[in-house]
Amino acid sequence: MKPDIRVDIDILRNFCKEIFIRLGLNSDDAPTAAEVLVAADVRGIPSHGVGRILRYINGIKSGMMLPAATIKTINETPGSIVIDANGGMGAPVSVRMMKKIIDKADVNGSAFGCIKNSNHFGISGYYAMMALERDMLGIAMTNTPALGVPTFGRQVMYGTNPIAFAAPANREKAFVLDMSTTVTARGKIEMYDRKEESIPLGWAVDKTGRPTTDAHRLLDDMFHRRGGGILPLGGTGEKFGGHKGFGLAVMVDILCAVLCGAPMGPELSDTDTSKRMSHFFGAIKISGFRDPDDFRADMDRMLSHLRDCPPAVGEERVYFAGLKEFEKEKEVRELGVPLRKNTCDLLRRIAEDLGMKSLF
Amino acid sequence: MKPDIRVDIDILRNFCKEIFIRLGLNSDDAPTAAEVLVAADVRGIPSHGVGRILRYINGIKSGMMLPAATIKTINETPGSIVIDANGGMGAPVSVRMMKKIIDKADVNGSAFGCIKNSNHFGISGYYAMMALERDMLGIAMTNTPALGVPTFGRQVMYGTNPIAFAAPANREKAFVLDMSTTVTARGKIEMYDRKEESIPLGWAVDKTGRPTTDAHRLLDDMFHRRGGGILPLGGTGEKFGGHKGFGLAVMVDILCAVLCGAPMGPELSDTDTSKRMSHFFGAIKISGFRDPDDFRADMDRMLSHLRDCPPAVGEERVYFAGLKEFEKEKEVRELGVPLRKNTCDLLRRIAEDLGMKSLF
Repeated sequence: MKPDIRVDIDILRNFCKEIFIRLGLNSDDAPTAAEVLVAADVRGIPSHGVGRILRYINGIKSGMMLPAATIKTINETPGSIVIDANGGMGAPVSVRMMKKIIDKADVNGSAFGCIKNSNHFGISGYYAMMALERDMLGIAMTNTPALGVPTFGRQVMYGTNPIAFAAPANREKAFVLDMSTTVTARGKIEMYDRKEESIPLGWAVDKTGRPTTDAHRLLDDMFHRRGGGILPLGGTGEKFGGHKGFGLAVMVDILCAVLCGAPMGPELSDTDTSKRMSHFFGAIKISGFRDPDDFRADMDRMLSHLRDCPPAVGEERVYFAGLKEFEKEKEVRELGVPLRKNTCDLLRRIAEDLGMKSLF
Repeated sequence: MKPDIRVDIDILRNFCKEIFIRLGLNSDDAPTAAEVLVAADVRGIPSHGVGRILRYINGIKSGMMLPAATIKTINETPGSIVIDANGGMGAPVSVRMMKKIIDKADVNGSAFGCIKNSNHFGISGYYAMMALERDMLGIAMTNTPALGVPTFGRQVMYGTNPIAFAAPANREKAFVLDMSTTVTARGKIEMYDRKEESIPLGWAVDKTGRPTTDAHRLLDDMFHRRGGGILPLGGTGEKFGGHKGFGLAVMVDILCAVLCGAPMGPELSDTDTSKRMSHFFGAIKISGFRDPDDFRADMDRMLSHLRDCPPAVGEERVYFAGLKEFEKEKEVRELGVPLRKNTCDLLRRIAEDLGMKSLF
């Protein structure tokens, strides 16, 4: 899709920072919130980028997101930490947490932490990648409000529950896996619904638990919790491994929520402030296993193997996890962040509402 | 499938131990190898059970598996360890490693380790579950000889690369995820081939990278490395998340092999002793985050939610990861290990060859 406009990264970031300041974030948190948000657009993941800023504004207006929340440490050891975000914005507390975990891992070899009572934190990969320059493996996960149906079930019991894992290389770009554990996201189903098209068979089941292609009825049934929802990675039943995606989603919920005593699975809500989401972060120091330079050299060998894999007939090439995003980033750093006209209109209206000078 | 015979667990385990002793394993390693092997049958995973013992015998005969190998520690810190198995049997060194990692995690909060130059270690879940009684989360992975094709590719670049993750509960059974990251296993395709049936579309691609249902030609092309292979979890292309399964498989290879400098991906071989497989293990202590009793109580709540999820029309119930296996285990402990006649015949022939009294 050709963008309608290109905006310089720094200008867009400053603009978003200014919005967050006016929404009540302090001068430490606002740039971080803007940085993580714009990073999604820079890496070619606009579903988590500036086009999403209205959700944060609405979250703050409704009291779901508290821009001036005070973070509280609940539990801490040399290798672990649990934080209560007290309803604060997801990105700033998560960046601070991941920095802390990396520093702990530097001393302890590895470290892990949970944040409970938090909100949408943007792209998981952002936090996992923070470990790269410190010669560590980075891990980040979050649970999300329930929209996924278990294998053989018909009610939503878990969220898109993404897993991010990052490992550094040298000449090659880093390996950055950032994947939801459901077969698709609600946003994609909404796109089909807007275009009045059928969704692919294997993405979702209806309220009886049978495969459906009817996006509109599915979204309506999900909204009213009549049943039906998105399938786990692997799809319907067990034949293609749907039970594996279901298992991964539950694993994410265990690490994010059960490990720190937070709401889990179907208990999560988009509106109930006592049922906010929680995150899990980790870092593992490579030097505990081998010389990080040797590790990076072997990563180069592995990733170039994968990049050079002969493509299927009709396909151009093979991408390892993160490669598309790094290539997108290169393009965006040269040409600016691509934005659609409707996103520009949205940002202009927001600027007007907040009494700011618009970018556009 | 109704079993042809039932054998008492202890009797079968002793029989396998005796086989391993005669194959050259010492009196420490032989019972461990037998224990892990029989555990697969006990948990209803016969593909990794005693029916597989011939592969170990052949591995020892060919020199791929060295029953009296000396283990060497290459690198060790309070939270990490790398071991060279020197071509030894997979299960005994892995059990010893997981015990060591659990002890390290008890002091350090978490600990991780790699074993390189190892062999088939049985069911990954066995090692992850060792952490449960110590109030820890357990992790185990292994890479395997390449049979998986990357998204948009046509050559095998990674193995079935299983991930196991175990978390303890209280009244409920533990959560035990033990999943390959490919959509299916080679053994299942071989079953279709023997029955001269077509495999489901979405399991594999042919040597041109296009979806295939021809099990026989696929296995032949894979054997000769002409191209073609099994698809990652999520299937063909990106529409159903095949790139996610591919990413998970590579993550496993990074943790098992790149982290300790072992052969990876397409470099792994079934026959070349310099290109053996490697494993990754981890344990995370729950008490670093919260009281383990509270964790177990919340696990009970989560797992009972999942178990009680209303089933899809036509389905009986929903299983969380590990539940089927625990129910199977209960049945096997009451009735004995179910064996097919061809497995009994195999074990009888092996016993004869080794000059042992047969069970059957």
